[in-house]
Amino acid sequence: MWDRFLRACRREPVDCTPVWFMRQAGRYMQEYRDIRKSHTLLEICRNTELATEVTLQPIRAHRVDAAILFADILLPLEPMGAPFEFAKGEGPKVFDPIRDEAGVAKLKIIDPEDGLGYVMNAIRSIRGELEGKTPLIGFAGAPFTLASYLIEGGKSSNYALTKMMMYQKPELWAELMSKLSEVVRRYLRAQVAAGAQAVQLFDSWAGALSQADYADFILPHVKHILGDIETLGVPVIHFGTATASLLELQRDAGGTVIGVDWRTPLADAWKRIGYDRAVQGNLEPLLLNAPKPLLEKRVDEVLAAADGRDGHIFNLGHGILPTTPPEAVSHVVEYVHAKSRR
Amino acid sequence: MWDRFLRACRREPVDCTPVWFMRQAGRYMQEYRDIRKSHTLLEICRNTELATEVTLQPIRAHRVDAAILFADILLPLEPMGAPFEFAKGEGPKVFDPIRDEAGVAKLKIIDPEDGLGYVMNAIRSIRGELEGKTPLIGFAGAPFTLASYLIEGGKSSNYALTKMMMYQKPELWAELMSKLSEVVRRYLRAQVAAGAQAVQLFDSWAGALSQADYADFILPHVKHILGDIETLGVPVIHFGTATASLLELQRDAGGTVIGVDWRTPLADAWKRIGYDRAVQGNLEPLLLNAPKPLLEKRVDEVLAAADGRDGHIFNLGHGILPTTPPEAVSHVVEYVHAKSRR
Repeated sequence: MWDRFLRACRREPVDCTPVWFMRQAGRYMQEYRDIRKSHTLLEICRNTELATEVTLQPIRAHRVDAAILFADILLPLEPMGAPFEFAKGEGPKVFDPIRDEAGVAKLKIIDPEDGLGYVMNAIRSIRGELEGKTPLIGFAGAPFTLASYLIEGGKSSNYALTKMMMYQKPELWAELMSKLSEVVRRYLRAQVAAGAQAVQLFDSWAGALSQADYADFILPHVKHILGDIETLGVPVIHFGTATASLLELQRDAGGTVIGVDWRTPLADAWKRIGYDRAVQGNLEPLLLNAPKPLLEKRVDEVLAAADGRDGHIFNLGHGILPTTPPEAVSHVVEYVHAKSRR
Repeated sequence: MWDRFLRACRREPVDCTPVWFMRQAGRYMQEYRDIRKSHTLLEICRNTELATEVTLQPIRAHRVDAAILFADILLPLEPMGAPFEFAKGEGPKVFDPIRDEAGVAKLKIIDPEDGLGYVMNAIRSIRGELEGKTPLIGFAGAPFTLASYLIEGGKSSNYALTKMMMYQKPELWAELMSKLSEVVRRYLRAQVAAGAQAVQLFDSWAGALSQADYADFILPHVKHILGDIETLGVPVIHFGTATASLLELQRDAGGTVIGVDWRTPLADAWKRIGYDRAVQGNLEPLLLNAPKPLLEKRVDEVLAAADGRDGHIFNLGHGILPTTPPEAVSHVVEYVHAKSRR
């Protein structure tokens, strides 16, 4: 069934539970590392042929039920006027972090075809290669998560500067979030127009926020994006980590599918979100490094939590790590398909 | 009321809600920075006079309702055979991370008076200086949190090596956790014997675990500690962050008081934990950097969530950050006392 992922997003009956993995294209695969020997991550993103090849690698290797565009959530920052690099082993580094009025003022609300056209080219190319056999997911970072990189200058453990701007300069914060959410809205629209059959919004770090702060400072901006994208008729996956206390608010902000990380048991999460939404998750990513009996036990627990209900997409609670054995990825795909066969 | 903190731990009536702050002695205070100019953090911990002085600084400056011993959760690692340093601006660095059988085998189950006697000396000295006017809290790191530093070699964003040992070598993991929990049990016993009137167990990073993994790999070891310490008759605070989905399991593992971080609304948390336990928390630490109206609004929300019930200790959801204005700390103490006056 080529479209079991899309059907599950819409809570339609499927022959078995669809499976894909966040960061399913990446360093854990030899085929990817071979390409990285002569190309940076950003070079791969910007090169249609390479982005296509890398996106397809896990489809060929693991028979997952969806392809996800090879890209990075930070790509829109450069054309907006905030260039960055991936420093070796240190994650992203924004050269000139945005911390004041002047910084926010200089950020441009871009048209995605100006500066991000290469992403849409990759989508068109991947769709061509997939020949309708596997659906393609596009994605973007959510405004809080993008703002945290812009303000902190990279990954943060406590988001101190981000939260300080939010608390101390609420108008400036709102201006920054408005710019980011408008760019993300346009960017996801452009991805859908180019052929993405579903999109995922990564609010990876929203789980650092209290309910009150999420509701006051974040939710309206996420709604600005998802309220529009949901009118396009493609499924929208709304994802974050450490969001155990935010699931209802994230659902209210939008999403056909709510992503659940491994910290919240899927049965509890789905009950709270409501069965009128699909859910995605939620195996602990490190379990791919566990011995097979424990891995299978925990996969069984996720499937039992979903209780055979239509609208479950099997995934990890966050992205695949570089140390993951590719055999474990293939095994989980086969195992989930077999165990969930209707 | 000198003992309103201890009374609240036992859910006895108080004149107003007690307040203290995790990391209330620290870099946000000029008095502390002055001492750090000529002494490292570890020198302060090991010097009775300096540890006493630094512990007392926030008592004098902010009139908080409890003193907490100035120390670090990693102190037991050195006498156990795993020395470490605090690298400038990078957090702790364990020189020789523990990753295999030989590493675990060489860890010693110490008697706390051998190698940690300076901590008990500090407790005796601080108790003398406090003259019964403010209760003193001792503390230790919990075995998972300590293991994560030992195995990763420092702070981690995903605990990959820690979880891999847990999954791939469960016997070795159990051996490591047994050693750590026995040392922590002895260490907290020794702190109580030296005069600590309450103790807090910091399982700061347990929130990285799923319920199933916490129950299988962590809970029995925490129980080994808290089951014993609770027989001593002093309140035990059991604390972690990002534990929204673990609160019931942490309660089952033990604790007179359960610490709640800012991610979970206190009213929900207390209901789930049960009103037969006290709760501590849970203001977002960065709100101390917010303008007064927002800060007070969020403090009001915490107090409203506690609903005037006996057994609430006001605290942050995690430690005070170096950028915190000391005036905000004083203000919150006064404000909570005034607003919660019975």
